[in-house]
Amino acid sequence: MSQGPDLRALAVDDDTRRRLDFLVQAHALTGVERLNRLVDGSRGETSAEHSWHLALWALVLHPAVAPDTQLERVLSMLLIHDVVEVDTGDTPFHDAAARAAIADAEAAAAVRLFGLLPDDVGPRGRELWEEFEHGATDEARFARALDRLQPLVLHWSGDGSAWRDGDRTASQLRDVLLAEIERHWPPLVPVAVAVIDDAQRRGMVG
Amino acid sequence: MSQGPDLRALAVDDDTRRRLDFLVQAHALTGVERLNRLVDGSRGETSAEHSWHLALWALVLHPAVAPDTQLERVLSMLLIHDVVEVDTGDTPFHDAAARAAIADAEAAAAVRLFGLLPDDVGPRGRELWEEFEHGATDEARFARALDRLQPLVLHWSGDGSAWRDGDRTASQLRDVLLAEIERHWPPLVPVAVAVIDDAQRRGMVG
Repeated sequence: MSQGPDLRALAVDDDTRRRLDFLVQAHALTGVERLNRLVDGSRGETSAEHSWHLALWALVLHPAVAPDTQLERVLSMLLIHDVVEVDTGDTPFHDAAARAAIADAEAAAAVRLFGLLPDDVGPRGRELWEEFEHGATDEARFARALDRLQPLVLHWSGDGSAWRDGDRTASQLRDVLLAEIERHWPPLVPVAVAVIDDAQRRGMVG
Repeated sequence: MSQGPDLRALAVDDDTRRRLDFLVQAHALTGVERLNRLVDGSRGETSAEHSWHLALWALVLHPAVAPDTQLERVLSMLLIHDVVEVDTGDTPFHDAAARAAIADAEAAAAVRLFGLLPDDVGPRGRELWEEFEHGATDEARFARALDRLQPLVLHWSGDGSAWRDGDRTASQLRDVLLAEIERHWPPLVPVAVAVIDDAQRRGMVG
């Protein structure tokens, strides 16, 4: 994916080269723009920025709403949860048909990307990615709820333009996002409710 | 800092409001551009993207070069290490005079930003930030070495334009970056050496 120099030119051992290859390729998440706009409206938030912000959410909310989860696992999961988008791009959560269609491509991307890495980290990375995808543990469920809540708060704290462009209503947000947050991590429900209520009151959604 | 709706309008408890305030303000790191260009050259990498990528570096390199450090602490530190730039902006590592001048402002920003948070996470965040700043533990030294190595590899994997603009030489990179990596985390030295050698061979630096 890199347009830069070839990693084969580097005088490092094969193990190190594989880690660098993954890291340089993963950096392409800085080129994947999401629907969320930055606060100044200049461009979409990138998946790299989203991944950082989500991990920060976990760090800040962990003691209050998920103290019994292993923070290291939650952080690790959030750091890699979107890395498959290096190959597939971002698929908005609201587009259910597109998400179903892309599932196989994302699984293949996970095999390819984590397969670049040595055995002490590649298989663990792929397992964490699958754990997140399937919401298989408390750590994954907490992480998935954050992945729904963060865009909601960002839309609300910005100008809500992505909601307007998508002709989004408060009922839709409640039926889809809120329901998913409730299913995954109920302690985060009050935040989502407050944000949707305020967005509706302010006319940011219909 | 937010141009969006007022957090006071949200019907959440004060504890939650403080966490959201920090998270919304921290998101401004998506507007802080660094010297490193994206691979496609379109813009500078943001501090948010840099923070994510560094944490990914830690995750991928930890088993190989820092297995005895606590990964959770390393990840947490890297996620918050640049958050003061919300108030101060980015100060390039190579500009020693600017870095000395900005130190007090960064410390004040840490007090302000981590002070937004409740007591179960604010003081710990500020301690982690200071631990990183002072390279006070193995976790902080590993993290600081990554913070030097990642930009080096990014410059190399891109077109090296930031090096050319800054009239950078391989000797300068060795005297400053390599020396710092060696001081903080010797196991990462071979990577830095290989990258600088190849950059010089390719004429990316003088």
